[in-house]
Amino acid sequence: MTIKDEIIEFMKADFPQATCTIDTVGDKSATVRQTIGYDELRPGGTVSGPVLMTVADCALYVAILGEIGIVPLAVTTSLSINFMRKPSSDKDIIGECTLLKVGKSLIVGEVSLFSEGDSNAVAHVVGTYSIPQSIKAKN
Amino acid sequence: MTIKDEIIEFMKADFPQATCTIDTVGDKSATVRQTIGYDELRPGGTVSGPVLMTVADCALYVAILGEIGIVPLAVTTSLSINFMRKPSSDKDIIGECTLLKVGKSLIVGEVSLFSEGDSNAVAHVVGTYSIPQSIKAKN
Amino acid sequence: MTIKDEIIEFMKADFPQATCTIDTVGDKSATVRQTIGYDELRPGGTVSGPVLMTVADCALYVAILGEIGIVPLAVTTSLSINFMRKPSSDKDIIGECTLLKVGKSLIVGEVSLFSEGDSNAVAHVVGTYSIPQSIKAKN
Amino acid sequence: MTIKDEIIEFMKADFPQATCTIDTVGDKSATVRQTIGYDELRPGGTVSGPVLMTVADCALYVAILGEIGIVPLAVTTSLSINFMRKPSSDKDIIGECTLLKVGKSLIVGEVSLFSEGDSNAVAHVVGTYSIPQSIKAKN
Repeated sequence: MTIKDEIIEFMKADFPQATCTIDTVGDKSATVRQTIGYDELRPGGTVSGPVLMTVADCALYVAILGEIGIVPLAVTTSLSINFMRKPSSDKDIIGECTLLKVGKSLIVGEVSLFSEGDSNAVAHVVGTYSIPQSIKAKN
Repeated sequence: MTIKDEIIEFMKADFPQATCTIDTVGDKSATVRQTIGYDELRPGGTVSGPVLMTVADCALYVAILGEIGIVPLAVTTSLSINFMRKPSSDKDIIGECTLLKVGKSLIVGEVSLFSEGDSNAVAHVVGTYSIPQSIKAKN
Repeated sequence: MTIKDEIIEFMKADFPQATCTIDTVGDKSATVRQTIGYDELRPGGTVSGPVLMTVADCALYVAILGEIGIVPLAVTTSLSINFMRKPSSDKDIIGECTLLKVGKSLIVGEVSLFSEGDSNAVAHVVGTYSIPQSIKAKN
Repeated sequence: MTIKDEIIEFMKADFPQATCTIDTVGDKSATVRQTIGYDELRPGGTVSGPVLMTVADCALYVAILGEIGIVPLAVTTSLSINFMRKPSSDKDIIGECTLLKVGKSLIVGEVSLFSEGDSNAVAHVVGTYSIPQSIKAKN
């Protein structure tokens, strides 16, 4: 089973509420995707901020699992988002995550969020995850 | 009609997806509340990060509307959250917002998030909203 | 020797470059002060952003030392600042820090920065410090 | 005169306290450099956080001037930094800025900070600048 399949299986079992899907994962990065429907929209036909934050958090989590293995207890400790452009109401949101630091206890990554097909990011996120101290890197 | 009732009516019409309710608003502040059920939880019985961010964004928005009047085009430009403690799975999340700066084009506020009945914040948020330039303050 | 005197002595020995002074410390909080001269100003007669960040970092550090004792290896892991008003060029900058969370490995605090005598904050900071794992709380 | 020379001249006249120098500027990006000496160090032989923030702010400012022309009144409205690795005490700090959004009133950019010769960033910054409304883009 590839690490991507492992993560998909783990998230299906442990995060059944998650609605984002994984395009790619590996090499300290991940790309995830969120389809957009009524629940994800706000008035004016734009994707809601919390949906964008959710996609970013998902991209970070997947990139981390791809790097250090399945770590059920990794938790977000901080997340900063800048909203930059209005997302399309009828395109998937794509989250591209790059890990900037993979430390023993803290992992830092950035995520650019796009409306599919447009190369100008709609938002940019920096987030940190805390890794339980008993977990070994690359387990 | 009080400003609180005006905001409730405006949000019902324009943000039917919003699920947070308003406890208080006024004096550059607002307190909002989100009930917690299956959709808001993550494994381990904790409230998901995006739900906390949504409550914070709602608290900021309500505090801003309470200060400058109904401004449909105010948009979040940035939001930073620090997750500090594990929220209860069976308590409402309360968001208490204080506006730090009400400028002509930018408004900055902070939000402390609590599980109801516990005075230790589960998360802390700082957010900024951009106000369309044609809007007058205190209209 | 009070904890305030301990911190002053420690900082004099270990951070001779620091120029901020301690007004108060204790009870998960601290107030520090920075005099403003030519080196701290930018054109237009305003205090430079990095000076404000330095005062905030100092306030956080002092509040942390006041809470957990002298910990030479505590390091800032993140710092977010919102600049809100133009500081006076001829008033001390006052930094008031409140610790929001004192965890075993991470400490989160917020700092409001003022030009002395004006109750409207010129900037607001949230910062996190990482505490070496071998350090005991309240040692 | 190139835009780089224009910016150097402008900063020499208006920011005589600035100590960072410009390596490159243009195409929505800039690279700046700060030499490191006693004043920039903290105990343990590391570069102080405020010095890193200053370099990041300088890189952002130079990239913005390179994009929209000499705008004396552009001001930082927010800056978030994650400290990731210990900088060398005897290498220049290099700040590489990329602008993520160049809006009419707000500009968002990110900066990676390096100890020269090491490709792992020591810190990562996201900052926003506010542009006075009377200024035209690309003037």
